[in-house]
Amino acid sequence: MSVDMAVKVLDESFGKVVLIKLKGGKVIRGSLQGFDQHMNLALEKAEEVSDDGQSSSLGTLIVRGDNIIMISPPPT
Amino acid sequence: MSVDMAVKVLDESFGKVVLIKLKGGKVIRGSLQGFDQHMNLALEKAEEVSDDGQSSSLGTLIVRGDNIIMISPPPT
Amino acid sequence: MSVDMAVKVLDESFGKVVLIKLKGGKVIRGSLQGFDQHMNLALEKAEEVSDDGQSSSLGTLIVRGDNIIMISPPPT
Amino acid sequence: MSVDMAVKVLDESFGKVVLIKLKGGKVIRGSLQGFDQHMNLALEKAEEVSDDGQSSSLGTLIVRGDNIIMISPPPT
Amino acid sequence: MSVDMAVKVLDESFGKVVLIKLKGGKVIRGSLQGFDQHMNLALEKAEEVSDDGQSSSLGTLIVRGDNIIMISPPPT
Amino acid sequence: MSVDMAVKVLDESFGKVVLIKLKGGKVIRGSLQGFDQHMNLALEKAEEVSDDGQSSSLGTLIVRGDNIIMISPPPT
Amino acid sequence: MSVDMAVKVLDESFGKVVLIKLKGGKVIRGSLQGFDQHMNLALEKAEEVSDDGQSSSLGTLIVRGDNIIMISPPPT
Repeated sequence: MSVDMAVKVLDESFGKVVLIKLKGGKVIRGSLQGFDQHMNLALEKAEEVSDDGQSSSLGTLIVRGDNIIMISPPPT
Repeated sequence: MSVDMAVKVLDESFGKVVLIKLKGGKVIRGSLQGFDQHMNLALEKAEEVSDDGQSSSLGTLIVRGDNIIMISPPPT
Repeated sequence: MSVDMAVKVLDESFGKVVLIKLKGGKVIRGSLQGFDQHMNLALEKAEEVSDDGQSSSLGTLIVRGDNIIMISPPPT
Repeated sequence: MSVDMAVKVLDESFGKVVLIKLKGGKVIRGSLQGFDQHMNLALEKAEEVSDDGQSSSLGTLIVRGDNIIMISPPPT
Repeated sequence: MSVDMAVKVLDESFGKVVLIKLKGGKVIRGSLQGFDQHMNLALEKAEEVSDDGQSSSLGTLIVRGDNIIMISPPPT
Repeated sequence: MSVDMAVKVLDESFGKVVLIKLKGGKVIRGSLQGFDQHMNLALEKAEEVSDDGQSSSLGTLIVRGDNIIMISPPPT
Repeated sequence: MSVDMAVKVLDESFGKVVLIKLKGGKVIRGSLQGFDQHMNLALEKAEEVSDDGQSSSLGTLIVRGDNIIMISPPPT
């Protein structure tokens, strides 16, 4: 299995909307514009999604990889 | 004992359903599609399993390895 | 995708006002004057923004990167 | 003293039942089938042991080493 | 942008009074006498500043860098 | 001062009873049988010491170094 | 500024009584007998100082560096 697993999945998600769950419970959704080997992510049109399904706009965003629990790429 | 212990077990679980316990108490189940040396996992048809046995669908998923406590490969 | 993703976004934000969310809930806003590979940031005219939208001045500031959850560069 | 202390003790416990205390209070017992330099463990016939001495079966298991506080090898 | 950003700002603050916010809420103020690449700091005439503005003297001090959230250099 | 400080003190404690305070409050006492550069310890005849001075036997034990706050070697 | 800042301050404190604040609130005082590059410390005649100023004897002690917030060398 390749060590570049995360890279491959993220590569395929480039320019698409991903859902990100952060430590502490925050959920972020945004268009993936970049990432690096630390799983740092650059998102556009990002928004924070609250438990009741409402979202507040965050605009462009860098998310530090060490806060991330899970990333859901878009359905294929 | 090989330093590649986790790799071997995960390799044998490739394409099969694994159960993952995360720090903070979340339990995830999904078909293992990939992993890397950080124990980052790619899952398909993933679902979050709650204490009462109910599950909610998460679709395709990257799980950051540093959130993982335990991985149960499928029974052989 | 480049490993220099964060660097590129931060480079483009140089001299502009960025919004920073820290672990523990603090929100900081300030003019980006520098950064390094640890995502340590140097800010000028920094201020802490509280939940009710009020802000208190912090002046010049070094923020250690490992406390950062997200950085919002200025809208382009 | 050898840097391979943990390796030696774990090597001698290979195929035997070990007791593992995890951060957060979980206690796991299982037959040691493998380990690596991160203290990641592979267990068979693993079970979670609760405070009242009852246990629930977990089957085969990979435990990430960074969750481990203590490992008790079998009595010799 | 230089990887030596923090070094540069700290270099310019040498011998001057800096304000340091630590994880857990402690606030320390003292004359910067040294630092290293881990952001470990040596302070003289350090004092802990409490929420109500009072301060208690700590004398000379080494602060481990990994406890630091923010450092405010003196106004220029 | 040598980088091998901990090694030297632990070397002198080899085969003797040491007292170990762990993060989270656990206190362990046991005969030191080995250690490595991560401060992982192998103990024999280990026991957990509770606040009221009572102890429960743990037998042979590997303690992961990153859980350790302090180690008290035996009085010389 | 030297990367050996902490080493220099600790070197000058060798054989003298230092005060150490640990994560979690513990305060330790003892005669510094050694240290290494991880800020692991060896103390003699160590004692834990409680909030009300009372102290309980700990004897000789190794303190793991990653638990340390601050070290106060003796007044010069």
